[in-house]
Amino acid sequence: MIIDCHGHYTTAPKALELFRKAQIAALTDPKAPARSFKASDDEVRETLVPAQLKLQIERGTDLALFSPGAGRMSHHIGNFETSSEWSRVCNDLIAQVCRIYPKNFVGVCQLPQSPGVEPKTCIPELERCVNELGFIGCNLNPDPSGGYWKDPPLIDRWWYPLYEKMVELDVPAMVHVAASCNPNFHGTGAHYINGDTSAFMQFVTSDLFKDFPTLKFIIPHGGGAVPYHWGRYRGLAQDMKRPPLTELLKNVFFDTCVYHQKGVDLLTSVVPVENVLFASEMVGAVKGVDPETGHRFDDTRRYIDGAAHLSAPQRHQIFEQNARRVYGRLNKVLAQRGLA
Amino acid sequence: MIIDCHGHYTTAPKALELFRKAQIAALTDPKAPARSFKASDDEVRETLVPAQLKLQIERGTDLALFSPGAGRMSHHIGNFETSSEWSRVCNDLIAQVCRIYPKNFVGVCQLPQSPGVEPKTCIPELERCVNELGFIGCNLNPDPSGGYWKDPPLIDRWWYPLYEKMVELDVPAMVHVAASCNPNFHGTGAHYINGDTSAFMQFVTSDLFKDFPTLKFIIPHGGGAVPYHWGRYRGLAQDMKRPPLTELLKNVFFDTCVYHQKGVDLLTSVVPVENVLFASEMVGAVKGVDPETGHRFDDTRRYIDGAAHLSAPQRHQIFEQNARRVYGRLNKVLAQRGLA
Repeated sequence: MIIDCHGHYTTAPKALELFRKAQIAALTDPKAPARSFKASDDEVRETLVPAQLKLQIERGTDLALFSPGAGRMSHHIGNFETSSEWSRVCNDLIAQVCRIYPKNFVGVCQLPQSPGVEPKTCIPELERCVNELGFIGCNLNPDPSGGYWKDPPLIDRWWYPLYEKMVELDVPAMVHVAASCNPNFHGTGAHYINGDTSAFMQFVTSDLFKDFPTLKFIIPHGGGAVPYHWGRYRGLAQDMKRPPLTELLKNVFFDTCVYHQKGVDLLTSVVPVENVLFASEMVGAVKGVDPETGHRFDDTRRYIDGAAHLSAPQRHQIFEQNARRVYGRLNKVLAQRGLA
Repeated sequence: MIIDCHGHYTTAPKALELFRKAQIAALTDPKAPARSFKASDDEVRETLVPAQLKLQIERGTDLALFSPGAGRMSHHIGNFETSSEWSRVCNDLIAQVCRIYPKNFVGVCQLPQSPGVEPKTCIPELERCVNELGFIGCNLNPDPSGGYWKDPPLIDRWWYPLYEKMVELDVPAMVHVAASCNPNFHGTGAHYINGDTSAFMQFVTSDLFKDFPTLKFIIPHGGGAVPYHWGRYRGLAQDMKRPPLTELLKNVFFDTCVYHQKGVDLLTSVVPVENVLFASEMVGAVKGVDPETGHRFDDTRRYIDGAAHLSAPQRHQIFEQNARRVYGRLNKVLAQRGLA
């Protein structure tokens, strides 16, 4: 089984966008009409069959850990109530996807974060998604302000109540920023990657995982800049008298959303194979075909297959085994669906 | 000749730090005593002989393009007057270094940037450094706010008067942030790398180099995350109907401050060799010895020598020729010193 741990429902029905627009309009217009969102199962099928499902078949991948569009989380908009309503709608839609296509998708939730609001307020929605909707992970935004980085770093006690709940529920978080509203940061080309790099370096400087030995984070987009600068991070940790990076790798994992062969070669030869989880982010940041290869940039399976230094068992770890280990609830969910 | 295009005077005499502390104290204490800074030539020698000069000899590198400490630029402190005084002091000290050791150092200046202040205010100091002190480049901070990214992006017309002057003087800028005062960003482990990544993506989205066909930027720290995500950037440019990245490479260059062999292998096999400039950042971000190699992490010459796919002429490009081409005033300065 090939498990893609990083997929967003970027192709969601147009009505979802209209709902969000109405929600945003109502923030400043008290007379805005009441709003609701509901997609029929057919509408959901129409958005997945020619996109994620088609690509799964073409690429021979089996299952995506599927979450709402990441950019569209836009936690910087409105307040906690805004994010709360928006998260419920988006997460319910993911649950609908998983109900219609139980062989293809397992849910990962968006959290109702809001700038300056304590992360513990996200606990009820996390519990709802895990306990009621059968989700197995969450996306955690290290910068709810959308590019101004005004909240405390991920290693601050500000986040601890949420971490306690994640540990209790046995769900990891993918550290994933949302849209950038800072003109200095292009979303998918800068803010996403910076968020990854910044989170990793926060972890390097902290004893967070002494406090939470079983807390797990996946850093997407191949870990931002981290594997490329692995020597820098090893050296910084050493200069700062921090433990070697290998200590951190008990709790921190990287996905394979790196869109060329040499990048994936680097990732999989620098980071231990047991810390690398297959992912493509499709349909996501980069949609086009690479003229150098004739294949889509985000067809990352080809790069794992093409990494000559990997053995077949190592590929199996990256494609399947690591996801089953890091997402502690995945095996049970798959068993319930008869996919064990 | 081996030219290291990225060195900061991080080992400057202690008195410089005391001057800065007095300057900062005076911002809030009108009764603070008058301050001045002067280092004797012997004091300068004492800080360089056991550090940068010793390492140049050990590593067999010849010349460093040398600028004031980057973190210490701290443009977020005080106002334009603060940055102006601080820049003059720091740049004069670099000029003193170059006078004492003309075979070893060529000057690159700090600019008196200040958050919210138009970059054109930096022109007099740039002119002074180039025309009077013989400097050949400048460090340009894309985020004078020190981690909150409040000023316009580098592609905004806000920066254009300074670019006009850079073009007129034929000096490139290294895009280099200063210290981070945002607890989310470790300085050398996150803010530096994010600054590099963000600047490159700004360039991808803009027609800046149509307006300034001869403007040149060096992106340090191996280009942040960019070479590792080269496929992502190629794909984003293509999806956005922007020119291919090769167009950008007429104006944008990368240094080799990547502290492990596999990172340098990636950089030099993904980015065209004519766009890679040798650099070590010594004595800088990472000072220790890599236990895996027995050599210092920042001894980047070893990685260039160790990159098996590079030919001798290609190494010569990286070590010397590219710097002579990108820093348009370098050859003349070296000739004046009898080092042509």
